[in-house]
Amino acid sequence: MDEPGKPTDLSYAASGVDYDMLDLFKRECQQAAAATGGALARHGLAEPPKVRGESAYLIELADCYLAHVEEGLGSKNLVADAMLEATGRSFYHAIGVDTVATIVNDVITSGALPIAVAMHAAVGDAQWFAHPARRRDLAAGFAAGCLAAGAAWGGGETPALRGIVEPGAAVLAGSALGRIAPKSLRIAGDVADGDAIILLASSGVHANGITLCRRLAERLPQGYLTPIGDGRGYGEALLAPTVIYVPFVAACQQAGVRLHYAVNITGHGWRKLMRADASFVYRMTALGDPGPLGRFLQAAGPLDDREAYATFNMGAGFAAMVAPAEAARTVALARAAGFTAWPGGRVERQGARKAVVLEPLGVVYEAASLGVR
Amino acid sequence: MDEPGKPTDLSYAASGVDYDMLDLFKRECQQAAAATGGALARHGLAEPPKVRGESAYLIELADCYLAHVEEGLGSKNLVADAMLEATGRSFYHAIGVDTVATIVNDVITSGALPIAVAMHAAVGDAQWFAHPARRRDLAAGFAAGCLAAGAAWGGGETPALRGIVEPGAAVLAGSALGRIAPKSLRIAGDVADGDAIILLASSGVHANGITLCRRLAERLPQGYLTPIGDGRGYGEALLAPTVIYVPFVAACQQAGVRLHYAVNITGHGWRKLMRADASFVYRMTALGDPGPLGRFLQAAGPLDDREAYATFNMGAGFAAMVAPAEAARTVALARAAGFTAWPGGRVERQGARKAVVLEPLGVVYEAASLGVR
Repeated sequence: MDEPGKPTDLSYAASGVDYDMLDLFKRECQQAAAATGGALARHGLAEPPKVRGESAYLIELADCYLAHVEEGLGSKNLVADAMLEATGRSFYHAIGVDTVATIVNDVITSGALPIAVAMHAAVGDAQWFAHPARRRDLAAGFAAGCLAAGAAWGGGETPALRGIVEPGAAVLAGSALGRIAPKSLRIAGDVADGDAIILLASSGVHANGITLCRRLAERLPQGYLTPIGDGRGYGEALLAPTVIYVPFVAACQQAGVRLHYAVNITGHGWRKLMRADASFVYRMTALGDPGPLGRFLQAAGPLDDREAYATFNMGAGFAAMVAPAEAARTVALARAAGFTAWPGGRVERQGARKAVVLEPLGVVYEAASLGVR
Repeated sequence: MDEPGKPTDLSYAASGVDYDMLDLFKRECQQAAAATGGALARHGLAEPPKVRGESAYLIELADCYLAHVEEGLGSKNLVADAMLEATGRSFYHAIGVDTVATIVNDVITSGALPIAVAMHAAVGDAQWFAHPARRRDLAAGFAAGCLAAGAAWGGGETPALRGIVEPGAAVLAGSALGRIAPKSLRIAGDVADGDAIILLASSGVHANGITLCRRLAERLPQGYLTPIGDGRGYGEALLAPTVIYVPFVAACQQAGVRLHYAVNITGHGWRKLMRADASFVYRMTALGDPGPLGRFLQAAGPLDDREAYATFNMGAGFAAMVAPAEAARTVALARAAGFTAWPGGRVERQGARKAVVLEPLGVVYEAASLGVR
C-alpha cells in the first residue's frame, strides 16, 4: 500500500525504494495482462470497457459483474511488532482488520460488494506464530474485518519462506471476490462537471505512508511511545484499524444513490482524488479534521501541507463523486451507516486540466504529480 | 507450496520449519473463517456443503458456482535466482508459469475453470526489478500461464517491503477467480468404491519439495550445475515449468466425463491422493516414470521410495478419480489434450481404513501420515 510522497527528509525516495523500477515493472505487467483479456471469450465472457488501470478487475456475466482484487497490507505490521516488543500488547486484531480493509476498500470502488476474502500470511519462520496473542488476534481480526465487510473468509495460504521473508517478519496480504448485481450498480467512472465530492473520515493513517511513519519513530526519543496529545501514544494511534467503507457503498446502492466515482484514499494521499481517467479539477473546499495523528505527523516531520496531503489521507479515507442534487442524501446515508462524512468539494471542468485544489490550504496538485493510476 | 515430508537428513523438520506451529495457525484460521460463512446470506448467497478444507473456496450463485483460490509459489524462485547468478540465464519465464500453475491447478480440483488470475510479487528492494530479463520474463511467463489456463490476467500487487522481504528476494503468489457453469460440473468429492484413478504426468518437481531440493544443491560439489543424466543440469531440471492441467479438466467437462474427485499432487506427495474426506484405500498399481530428476533426487538424497513419494510428485502431478467405465475415455481425453496420462490404480472401500498403497513399491501411507487436508 505504500507509495511515494514528494521527496523530503522523510521521503520515500530517501528511504531507498526505487519507484521508477517498480513502476516500470507495473507498466510491463499491465501491458502483458491487457493482452490476455481475450481468454475470457472461450468462457463466453468478457471484461467490460475501462476496467484496466482501475482498483478492481471486472468480468461481465449475464446478470452481474464479478470483481477480483489482490492487495497487500504493506509494512504496517512492523509497527505492531515494535509495539508488541515495547509494551507486550498485541495490536494484531487491528492488523487483521487492516489487511481485509486494504482489499475490500479497493473492491467497492468498482461498485462491487465483497463476497469472499482470502488471507495470505507468509512468514520467514513458523516461530512467528508461536506468540499466542499475535496469532489469535490476527485470525480474529481478519474474521472481524470480513464480517464488517459483509464477506465470507474463504481460504488462504500461510507459507514459511525462509530465505525470502525476513526472520521474525510476515507479509500480510490477500484477495477478494466481489459482485455487482444488478450490473447497473457498476461505478464506471462517469465523473461529471459540477459533481459533489463527499468525503468519509479515516481513523488515522490507515495503511499508507507507513514507511515514513516508521522512519519518524526512529527519530523520536520516545519512539512509538511518544504522546501525540490526545492520550494515545504514537504507535497506538498509528495502529487504529483502517475504516471499512463497504457499508457506505452498500447503503448508497440500497437507497438508489448513484456514485459516479469512488476513491480509496491510499498511496499518493489526496492526489488520488484525480484517479479517474477523465480530466477535471477537483476543488476541495472542506478538508475536514486531520485529527491528532495528522497534526502530530505534520509537526514532527515536519511536513508542510503540500507534503502531508500528498502522502497521508489526513483524516479523509474515502471519497465519492455524486450528482450535486444527491450530495446531502449521500452524506446522510453515510452518517446513518455510522461514518463521519461531509461535502468536501466539487468537480469542475477546466478544459484539459486535471488537478486537485485544496482551497483552504492554497495547495494545488497538477496531474503530473500523480504518476501512476 | 512446501509441506513436510517424512523426517530424514534432508527433511523439513531438519530445515527448521515448525509445521506444528503453522498447522495450529491454519486450524485457528479455519475455525475463524468457518464462522463467517453466514455473511453471504445478506447477498442472497451461500457456500455449498463440504467446501471448507478443500483447495478452492466456492460460492453458489443461481446458475453457477464461483471459485476463489489464494496460493503462493513457495521458494522455487530462489533456485531461479541461483541459476541466474551461476549462468546468467533467466528462468523467470518458467517461474511466471509456475506461479500461475500453483493457483489454477488448485482451482480446477473443484471443477471450476479459472477466469481471472492476479499476481502478487512482493520484493525486499525495488532493485529486484532492475534485471531486465528477470523482470520481463516473469511478466511474460505469468501472461503465458494465464493463457494456457484460459484465464485473463486481471490485476496484481507489487510492493517493495524493506524489512519484511529479504533484500534480493521476492514472494511470488496470487489468486484466481473461477467459475463452475453449469453447477452440475462441480467436483464435490463423491469418490466411490471401484473408481479408477487416472494419473497425469508432471514435468518434474513442480513447486513442491523445493526446500529439500535447495538443501541438496548445497551438498553437491557442482550444485545446481550437477548433470542429472539426461543432458540437463540439476537446476535446469528443477526449473522445468509446472504443468497446467486446466485443459484436461475442461476436456473432461466438454466430453461429459464426470470427475468424482481431482487432486493437485503438491505437498505431501502421493499422500495427497487420500485428500478426500471419505475413507478409502487408494491402491496404485502403475506409478509411471519418475523421470531423470526423480531418479536423481532419490539417488542423491538418498531418499528411499517411501520418503520420495511422500515428498515429491515423482512424475505424476495430477490425479482424477472416475467411474471405472470412464477410465479409458478419460485417459484418451487427457492424451488428446496433450498430456501424458495413464490408469494408475483404483479406489477400494476397506471399512474405515484410509490409506494410499503404492503396490509396485510395497509402500503404504496410512491416514495419520497426512496431517493436514
